[in-house]
Amino acid sequence: MMPEIENLHSFIANCVRLVDAKLDEIVPTAETEPTNLHKAIRHSLFAGGKRFRPAFVFAVGKTLDVPNEKLLNVAAAIEMIHTYSLIHDDLPAMDDDDLRRGRETCHVKFGEATAILAGDALETFAFQVIAEDENLSPEIRVRLISEIARGAGTPSGMVAGQQVDLESEGKEIRIEDLENIHRGKTGAMIEVSARTAAIIAEINEDQLSAVTKYASSLGLLFQITDDLLDVTQTTEVLGKTAGKDEISKKATYPAYYGIDGTKELAAKVHTETVLYLQAIDRPTDLLNEVADFILNRRK
Amino acid sequence: MMPEIENLHSFIANCVRLVDAKLDEIVPTAETEPTNLHKAIRHSLFAGGKRFRPAFVFAVGKTLDVPNEKLLNVAAAIEMIHTYSLIHDDLPAMDDDDLRRGRETCHVKFGEATAILAGDALETFAFQVIAEDENLSPEIRVRLISEIARGAGTPSGMVAGQQVDLESEGKEIRIEDLENIHRGKTGAMIEVSARTAAIIAEINEDQLSAVTKYASSLGLLFQITDDLLDVTQTTEVLGKTAGKDEISKKATYPAYYGIDGTKELAAKVHTETVLYLQAIDRPTDLLNEVADFILNRRK
Repeated sequence: MMPEIENLHSFIANCVRLVDAKLDEIVPTAETEPTNLHKAIRHSLFAGGKRFRPAFVFAVGKTLDVPNEKLLNVAAAIEMIHTYSLIHDDLPAMDDDDLRRGRETCHVKFGEATAILAGDALETFAFQVIAEDENLSPEIRVRLISEIARGAGTPSGMVAGQQVDLESEGKEIRIEDLENIHRGKTGAMIEVSARTAAIIAEINEDQLSAVTKYASSLGLLFQITDDLLDVTQTTEVLGKTAGKDEISKKATYPAYYGIDGTKELAAKVHTETVLYLQAIDRPTDLLNEVADFILNRRK
Repeated sequence: MMPEIENLHSFIANCVRLVDAKLDEIVPTAETEPTNLHKAIRHSLFAGGKRFRPAFVFAVGKTLDVPNEKLLNVAAAIEMIHTYSLIHDDLPAMDDDDLRRGRETCHVKFGEATAILAGDALETFAFQVIAEDENLSPEIRVRLISEIARGAGTPSGMVAGQQVDLESEGKEIRIEDLENIHRGKTGAMIEVSARTAAIIAEINEDQLSAVTKYASSLGLLFQITDDLLDVTQTTEVLGKTAGKDEISKKATYPAYYGIDGTKELAAKVHTETVLYLQAIDRPTDLLNEVADFILNRRK
């Protein structure tokens, strides 16, 4: 097991290098006017994020034999959407958090107005880099943009999930509602990360559906472990305020099932996630390792 | 002159009908969960906005013989980008305004968090409808998305202009800086409105450049008259808080040139705008009327 984990770690490290270089190329330098805006974007974008979503794009792409250069802009775009959502979520009117990825949140350092605009600009960059990606046919590019816009938006995407999450604070909610929140808020863009790689691979609809089921289950596993980490890890390890969910009376799995019950649920969802891989007609060792990695992650 | 203006008014009224029907089709109903988010989006989108940008898409498109169905999604997308920018600009951390299009601003009615998310969602819809527009080839769609993303983003688009505008509040600025703010904040998306129609028309680069110069000059005229209306009209007529620029110490043309000097500037820019039409090798009566309309507008 150990050598495989080592492999996945070096695979992820390589993805991070590639994506960081691409993001640095896309976003205007900190010296470009208006400098505060570009500094704010870079502050949040280069804060040592885990880059899970772009790494997942690469993992699915590698499984389906897609060369890296066809995945790179999409991976960067999805990370920019993710970062914009973190910047906006951290705002005082939303989750009101002052620590993210181990440093001050964007609005604490640059002010609320600049943070709002930095998020807005990151959203435009995400669509721009895909629209201008010469490594992909225009047909593929428009499909990717449609996928990402739907996954990031409403009624079934990230923004919708965030809205339901905010409205549920302090309320008793049902487990179906909790799953619904997570499916939108986190699951949709994790699913999109896999689907975009699969669309670039031009696999058939059956195979695309198989990839989607695996990714959807992995997204659920990701959120369950995220909720667990919030209650079991320190702020220092997470790089964001630990225990925040309970303070803000968020709907979470541990609040529902307790810590041990949530660990059992994670193990069960992990087993299901791995089972979905059987329907993919390629060697899926890497995607298996990704599922193990999410189950066992410490941050 | 009177019959022509009548024609333009009925042309604009027809554009508004078409665009409103399309927007209604794109955005989830107010009954779709999460309902508050969709109500907030609809509150701001269907508030009787002037719809100048989509009407301008149609005016340029008509001049270049493009059928309406090829323009409709782009016109709707540009209006959604415009509306998202108004929602975010009105937030307390930005311009802090509570009146827009004659009604409460989005955050006053639905809360700040929902207003932020409503703006974010509108941005995703704008790119989604173009990516999925079956009336246009994928090649054209990716060009349009690139244009709109650059026009709406940074370093030379709307978000950059808004950032410079916010940073200039209460400061002495040079006339070049003022033009720079306006070029980004308002001019870029007005230019994009014309360029997207021209790209759909598939005219040559020379003609695209001619259309761009006219639109760029019209965008400047639009902002000059906007600044004038802020100091000469009532809140009731404008549907947004009049005199706001002076209170918030915004950089404006009247602050720089006085009201009479600004009126003279508007007349001069109008003349230049109309002169640019000579380089367009089609009958440009409609675009001439648009320039007159912007010079003489009362709101």
